[in-house]
Amino acid sequence: MIYGCAWYPEHWPESHWAQDLKLMREARMNMVRIAEFAWSSIEPEEGRYELDWIERAIEAAAAEGFAVVLGTPSAAPPAWLTERYPDVFAVGPSGIRRKPGSRCAYAPASATYRRFGAAVAKAMAKRFGNHRSVIGWQIDNEYKSVSHDDDTRAQFQQWLARKYGSLAELNRRWCTVYWSQEFSAWTQIPLPVRTADTFPDEHYHPALQLEWKRFQSYLYRGFQAAQIDAIRAHADARQRVTHNFMGFFDLFDHYEVAADLDFVSWDSYVPLSRPDPFANGASHDLMRGLKRRNFWLMETQPGFVNWRPANNTLDPGEVRTLAWHAIGHGADAVAYWQWRSALNSQEQYHGTILAADGTPRPIYSELAALGAELEKIAPVLEGSDPQPSIGLLHSYDSRWALDIQRHNQAFDPLLQMVEWYRPLRELGHDVEIVHPDAALDAFQLIVAPSLHIVEPSMVVALHAFVARGGHLVLGPRTGVKDVDNALFPMRGPGPLGELSPARVVEFYVLDETIAIQGSAGCGRARIWADWLEPVSAGADVLLRYEQAGTWVDGKAAAITHTLGKGRVTLLGTWLDHATMLSLMRRVVGWSGLGAGSPCGEPPTGVEICRRVKGADEVWIAINHGREHHTLRFNEPMKDLLGGAQGAALGLGALSVLVLQRAATFAHQL
Amino acid sequence: MIYGCAWYPEHWPESHWAQDLKLMREARMNMVRIAEFAWSSIEPEEGRYELDWIERAIEAAAAEGFAVVLGTPSAAPPAWLTERYPDVFAVGPSGIRRKPGSRCAYAPASATYRRFGAAVAKAMAKRFGNHRSVIGWQIDNEYKSVSHDDDTRAQFQQWLARKYGSLAELNRRWCTVYWSQEFSAWTQIPLPVRTADTFPDEHYHPALQLEWKRFQSYLYRGFQAAQIDAIRAHADARQRVTHNFMGFFDLFDHYEVAADLDFVSWDSYVPLSRPDPFANGASHDLMRGLKRRNFWLMETQPGFVNWRPANNTLDPGEVRTLAWHAIGHGADAVAYWQWRSALNSQEQYHGTILAADGTPRPIYSELAALGAELEKIAPVLEGSDPQPSIGLLHSYDSRWALDIQRHNQAFDPLLQMVEWYRPLRELGHDVEIVHPDAALDAFQLIVAPSLHIVEPSMVVALHAFVARGGHLVLGPRTGVKDVDNALFPMRGPGPLGELSPARVVEFYVLDETIAIQGSAGCGRARIWADWLEPVSAGADVLLRYEQAGTWVDGKAAAITHTLGKGRVTLLGTWLDHATMLSLMRRVVGWSGLGAGSPCGEPPTGVEICRRVKGADEVWIAINHGREHHTLRFNEPMKDLLGGAQGAALGLGALSVLVLQRAATFAHQL
Amino acid sequence: MIYGCAWYPEHWPESHWAQDLKLMREARMNMVRIAEFAWSSIEPEEGRYELDWIERAIEAAAAEGFAVVLGTPSAAPPAWLTERYPDVFAVGPSGIRRKPGSRCAYAPASATYRRFGAAVAKAMAKRFGNHRSVIGWQIDNEYKSVSHDDDTRAQFQQWLARKYGSLAELNRRWCTVYWSQEFSAWTQIPLPVRTADTFPDEHYHPALQLEWKRFQSYLYRGFQAAQIDAIRAHADARQRVTHNFMGFFDLFDHYEVAADLDFVSWDSYVPLSRPDPFANGASHDLMRGLKRRNFWLMETQPGFVNWRPANNTLDPGEVRTLAWHAIGHGADAVAYWQWRSALNSQEQYHGTILAADGTPRPIYSELAALGAELEKIAPVLEGSDPQPSIGLLHSYDSRWALDIQRHNQAFDPLLQMVEWYRPLRELGHDVEIVHPDAALDAFQLIVAPSLHIVEPSMVVALHAFVARGGHLVLGPRTGVKDVDNALFPMRGPGPLGELSPARVVEFYVLDETIAIQGSAGCGRARIWADWLEPVSAGADVLLRYEQAGTWVDGKAAAITHTLGKGRVTLLGTWLDHATMLSLMRRVVGWSGLGAGSPCGEPPTGVEICRRVKGADEVWIAINHGREHHTLRFNEPMKDLLGGAQGAALGLGALSVLVLQRAATFAHQL
Repeated sequence: MIYGCAWYPEHWPESHWAQDLKLMREARMNMVRIAEFAWSSIEPEEGRYELDWIERAIEAAAAEGFAVVLGTPSAAPPAWLTERYPDVFAVGPSGIRRKPGSRCAYAPASATYRRFGAAVAKAMAKRFGNHRSVIGWQIDNEYKSVSHDDDTRAQFQQWLARKYGSLAELNRRWCTVYWSQEFSAWTQIPLPVRTADTFPDEHYHPALQLEWKRFQSYLYRGFQAAQIDAIRAHADARQRVTHNFMGFFDLFDHYEVAADLDFVSWDSYVPLSRPDPFANGASHDLMRGLKRRNFWLMETQPGFVNWRPANNTLDPGEVRTLAWHAIGHGADAVAYWQWRSALNSQEQYHGTILAADGTPRPIYSELAALGAELEKIAPVLEGSDPQPSIGLLHSYDSRWALDIQRHNQAFDPLLQMVEWYRPLRELGHDVEIVHPDAALDAFQLIVAPSLHIVEPSMVVALHAFVARGGHLVLGPRTGVKDVDNALFPMRGPGPLGELSPARVVEFYVLDETIAIQGSAGCGRARIWADWLEPVSAGADVLLRYEQAGTWVDGKAAAITHTLGKGRVTLLGTWLDHATMLSLMRRVVGWSGLGAGSPCGEPPTGVEICRRVKGADEVWIAINHGREHHTLRFNEPMKDLLGGAQGAALGLGALSVLVLQRAATFAHQL
Repeated sequence: MIYGCAWYPEHWPESHWAQDLKLMREARMNMVRIAEFAWSSIEPEEGRYELDWIERAIEAAAAEGFAVVLGTPSAAPPAWLTERYPDVFAVGPSGIRRKPGSRCAYAPASATYRRFGAAVAKAMAKRFGNHRSVIGWQIDNEYKSVSHDDDTRAQFQQWLARKYGSLAELNRRWCTVYWSQEFSAWTQIPLPVRTADTFPDEHYHPALQLEWKRFQSYLYRGFQAAQIDAIRAHADARQRVTHNFMGFFDLFDHYEVAADLDFVSWDSYVPLSRPDPFANGASHDLMRGLKRRNFWLMETQPGFVNWRPANNTLDPGEVRTLAWHAIGHGADAVAYWQWRSALNSQEQYHGTILAADGTPRPIYSELAALGAELEKIAPVLEGSDPQPSIGLLHSYDSRWALDIQRHNQAFDPLLQMVEWYRPLRELGHDVEIVHPDAALDAFQLIVAPSLHIVEPSMVVALHAFVARGGHLVLGPRTGVKDVDNALFPMRGPGPLGELSPARVVEFYVLDETIAIQGSAGCGRARIWADWLEPVSAGADVLLRYEQAGTWVDGKAAAITHTLGKGRVTLLGTWLDHATMLSLMRRVVGWSGLGAGSPCGEPPTGVEICRRVKGADEVWIAINHGREHHTLRFNEPMKDLLGGAQGAALGLGALSVLVLQRAATFAHQL
Repeated sequence: MIYGCAWYPEHWPESHWAQDLKLMREARMNMVRIAEFAWSSIEPEEGRYELDWIERAIEAAAAEGFAVVLGTPSAAPPAWLTERYPDVFAVGPSGIRRKPGSRCAYAPASATYRRFGAAVAKAMAKRFGNHRSVIGWQIDNEYKSVSHDDDTRAQFQQWLARKYGSLAELNRRWCTVYWSQEFSAWTQIPLPVRTADTFPDEHYHPALQLEWKRFQSYLYRGFQAAQIDAIRAHADARQRVTHNFMGFFDLFDHYEVAADLDFVSWDSYVPLSRPDPFANGASHDLMRGLKRRNFWLMETQPGFVNWRPANNTLDPGEVRTLAWHAIGHGADAVAYWQWRSALNSQEQYHGTILAADGTPRPIYSELAALGAELEKIAPVLEGSDPQPSIGLLHSYDSRWALDIQRHNQAFDPLLQMVEWYRPLRELGHDVEIVHPDAALDAFQLIVAPSLHIVEPSMVVALHAFVARGGHLVLGPRTGVKDVDNALFPMRGPGPLGELSPARVVEFYVLDETIAIQGSAGCGRARIWADWLEPVSAGADVLLRYEQAGTWVDGKAAAITHTLGKGRVTLLGTWLDHATMLSLMRRVVGWSGLGAGSPCGEPPTGVEICRRVKGADEVWIAINHGREHHTLRFNEPMKDLLGGAQGAALGLGALSVLVLQRAATFAHQL
């Protein structure tokens, strides 16, 4: 288990380094990430590289037993570079070019910028590509820049030209005859961005908007590849390359950008006042799903951040539970940002481990205790990973298409995904969040809350899944759009119609909730109402809308049918949480999945995560709440952390158990 | 009665057309509007016109018995045009030029754009100006673009120069000595627009702001005239020219722009979650008042739209009641937007009549039933129109002046108009919304909620109105400003002082309500409080402000007096609805108007509209609510729709009666 | 006592002037301010000055016994100037240059603009610098413009170069190695401004932001000096120079800009629906503290303004109480804006004293009665001023630094200042708001709510203050930053640690309140929680945070200790008002201050202000509330306004007493 932090030795005199590393070591840390953002220290003027200080920092860390991850510094270009080559700066939608004084301000399409980024990565790789203590590389930091400069626009137009082959093809697929938008030259194609002067009712073409998102994926993949190639040419295979993503962020298709990485890492910060273990757990699972392998938590907060309206802190114990939560979802590394704040500059108020005076803050004790735990448990977790039987389908294409035309502003596909994910977790089941084109062999149950854009390959895969006995659950607005963001010339669920227990007669936005009831429960429908018409008498209507003078009076809202060995369920609305939980309990039952956890449905606020290695299973039980609970198991369990054993174990507020079957544990001894 | 929809044959293969027209015909439609937005199909390259497809579409429609309205396509310039002549694009306040990818993005002042718009209209008129099935033309679509380009600014300055004759005159009337704003060259006059860099406290001159609004009217009148002239040169007189306005929208003076049209049409969409029959009814009456003749409902929603935050649908029955509502207010045509959505492009989610698969949506049945009703009733309504005895004065000048300086942000002159309009409708009376310079002969009662800017002609007309026995009701802030948006050097109501029962000692903004009571009722004053001082002992104070330690303690808030044969009432505040209704009941009584409808004051939620042809009267009774009511009449009535007859008739939720006196009806048989 | 108004004779024919002055005189006014904004009337074309009309206006005023203050007109450049020299216009953050049609739109750094401003001031001073009736000059009006043009940026870079000497020094002190922000040329330094294209997460360096604020102070001091020098060269010493500031406005360091003025004046407008006597009183005291001398109220509202969302009026009596309130806080002049509105232009709806018809509005009577009172009391107040024993430390540096990084958006340093100020006033004590570098000899108690940036001079002064027996009360976040906005490498309160009863172990943002209790009261902590650790056993913990599972469970929140002859108290949080009042009551008690007012703690809503001249004291008692109170004194008092006398005097709603000890009063007779 990797445990560490972000360390910026260039901010301090070298005489401070030994004390820093000693305190880290005492907290049982074993990894530091360095050099991220250090471009002006690495290349103080064009072409002159100063790497000795990095070597000294690596050696100092190595002397204390630390592994090192090197960040390429391209997220923060030095002033000499942007002054000499101003075109590397991104341009905003209103035409204003970025300027020095912040970070991540570059145009990812800029050939010049890519060249400089690759060159500095190459210089670093030549020097450290075989260093025994350097175990990996992080490319750039949290890709997030978008540019609207002329060169980027031209590249976008050329990319479209390559993709569509001819304007006739693009005009046809986009139906640009609408509003006389037919393009007669590639150069006419605009960027779909709102400027300071955009009218409220000025809308961009939905296909153009979707392609613009896809183009960002293309840009970042290319941007990243330039640096990976430079590193790979000089680094030994032992050194693995990653990027630190940002969870739910959707500027680009993360599946595509992650494809060229050796492993995925991400930066998890609590976006609201209090952490939400379901949204956060889904973030972890989404990141794990990018490559369907364990990931690193490359950055997380040692208490609080500095960018929220009110930067309150995690409570005592909560930093620890969130670390175990990440591990439960497949993290093989936990690292904090940052060790100590520089005395000046933008992030002075972000939480750190040391205070401005260089001595430990209160959080240090919690982190040191956590370090000791991780050191103890690491051998058990080594090589294990979560292996869920439930898959949740997620694609950026569908998310983007829905976000481009929500029709009801409350129809947030990300929120919807979490609302479908949460009851499955509450029932005690692990969930894998995967792309619809991923192999689906591992799953008995697949839920697809918003498979809005459906491609032929998905139709084939889902037919196969059901044919082999799987249970497929579809949500509202399924199968409405094709890959061009055009409407299918069919009623919903479009090309999935042959699988579906119903067709969608009509869709309606709900601005007020309406009552719903049936065998699956009794509650309220919200946000959206698909009017479902059963395709056969054998379909079982699970929920109906109430009689209230609306278009969906008494119509089906959820429906299921068996199809050969399999089953398909269609839900046409958003439900209140209790009804959704009730429905998912039935869904899980039909799917032949047993109890998800050894204690069945865990108590409210308690999360059970499973990691598996071969025949061995470890469960991490986390109480995210403030109430004490007793977990009752179907056989005696052993808590590897505290040592307690039995068929019932206590779990205090904000606390953690790491469980093995007592029998297994005895066996291992 | 015209009944139809917007049809875009260019979005589909011609093989689909016949099925479309057949389904329309089965819904009893008899009109299609085509060619709007089709510029790139009509003129695929500069100067080359392709009109054969339009001819084929017209012929296909004609074959099914449809009349056709042709839209000129200037709301959506093709890409070749804007690429070759980029100056035709509008420029935003911050200087950003529009680009391809939306619509209505042109500079209405552009001579180039006007030339191209006229040329395409001419080509169409030469080809179709005598076609038997083409009954009219719609110029452009929903004029809404504003441009801030240099040419527009120069034209604005020249327009001011022509209007004022000299800078000395402008400086004097605008009092530009204030803040040293005196202009010494016409070119110094800025556009009064907020940019991305405008300070919160940066204010433009109120006269400049008002003239900028007036200049938009001038621009659109000229823009429109270029196309009308091109059509008129080639079209026979049977073909009538219109534009589809947007109800309460106030970019320009609609009276001025409508002056050059043969008839007015407008596009009515429900702006909020649920339709408000009073605000919507006022929209209809405002549009009818533009030319004081019946109008067309050129577009309305078959259920829902796609541009609101949550695009909920009208309930079953509501599309029908809103159609009858329009007819009750003077619509001679009802048409829906749109028939079917193109599979791609911006408006995929807007309500349509056919679904994406080309078959009827649920709304189709309601529209077909409505079509049958309209076909049945049309002969009765032919040639009839509403003929109200109550006039409500409305001018864009006053609305703009108030909006430019609301003083209390809650003082929304449009909201105020609806608040005065609503009680009159609730009392069962039709209302005509007219410009203060219109002939006022038809009226016994004139209400003027916010005649803020008063011109000499209005003073003369209102003196004459009162002199012949009319009752004039004035609202707060009457007569404060002259035509230059300058304060009158008099206490309110300024030049109407000789008519008024009071002078305004002082005006106050109310940020909290205060109690009010008197012979006209007892309630709360809101938003504004004019302190009224009776001009004579004969004036009758109807309402007084409470004693509460404010400046208006015990002062008059509403006051009335007779003046010769007539009467003038002045209300100095905004009232709660119940008190306003109480006051208006008295006002109507004084005005010698009998019961407005044959059932007196209709039940809550029920609207009674009258249409008159010679001596014949038809009443349309619409229940906009969800409760059943029984209407009791002063003599037996016959429902032409359902056939029931009697002195009491039931009216269910969301339903409609079309009534004639049973005696008249018998006579007609 | 100066009493008057803003008068703009250039807006009217000269024939109106006599009537205006007669009505002013009847209201007992004795001063008019003229010529502000009159540049186009003074210099109608470049270099041609027309001053005769000003002379005639001065003579007309003088004939009625008025003193005159002349405003230099530079806040409103004439159109000929900005047309010929467009670079004088400010440029917004997004690069949009201002244009004619508003005011205060200049770049204060512009050498051209300064030259023209000085020239017109010189012309006026040459003509009127010895006029017997001209008693003073107001430079410009409410400095508020900021420009982001290239010249301003270059001047900023040069100013930094002069200040820091070398880039190496700047890079070191700003720690620009962070994010590779190291500057290699002065020209790389950006302006820290948000544009139309700024990303939400784009942050500027805190030192850069702070220096940009300081640079504005430099710019305005220079801008102002050019005009002062021009005037001083020609005006006799009797004519005193001022500027009308805007209270809490913080574009620049008012101490620095006020340093070159003879006296301070300011414009007091009620920012919210109702006046807050504590926030407003603090504004007065802040303005008085700029030079620690009495000030002028140069503008205040005769009822209402025109720039708020809802411009409600002050109630009857409230204009008067606010005038006495200003005098109580040290105003030696009260003047209203404005006498009468021009009939056109931007401020038509602002409250005035005459109506548009040139006759008195209702407020005139209240102002005339006030004028009579002031005339009567003036001799008693002549030469007196407030002489508080309590100082409140305030610096723009600390305010700016906190605002740049609030960490909790609710941590508004201005609000915090008012929350500390209010209980002291409620206890009956006057407060002087002063810069930390001011001489502190007058004080027994100093409160420093947010001394965030601490300079060495302040450490010395506060040590000396405590050493001589003073009581120093420090607030949360004290001593966190140095003059470069860098963190001190120490725990809080940083360099004040040797004085402090505690060190700050850690700081936390509170997004919810937590309970707090101790000997100083029992209530809620809000917004911020410093975890205080006593430095010695002798320290007395006054308040502790509750046990609630947070990091500050049971930790000290407020603590005090004696230090030699003095005392230091540290409060680490924000309190609810009641607890803050309870704490301050103890603080005042420890400080050896007796009752602040002759009636002890005044009733709720009643404010007692003291003015002192030698041994004579006058108290102004103001009832800002709507309830009647009886004030009970420790000895008989005489009300100089109404004449009542006794040890108990009634004070009605919105009324005022001007009190002397009855004995003193008798003595004076």
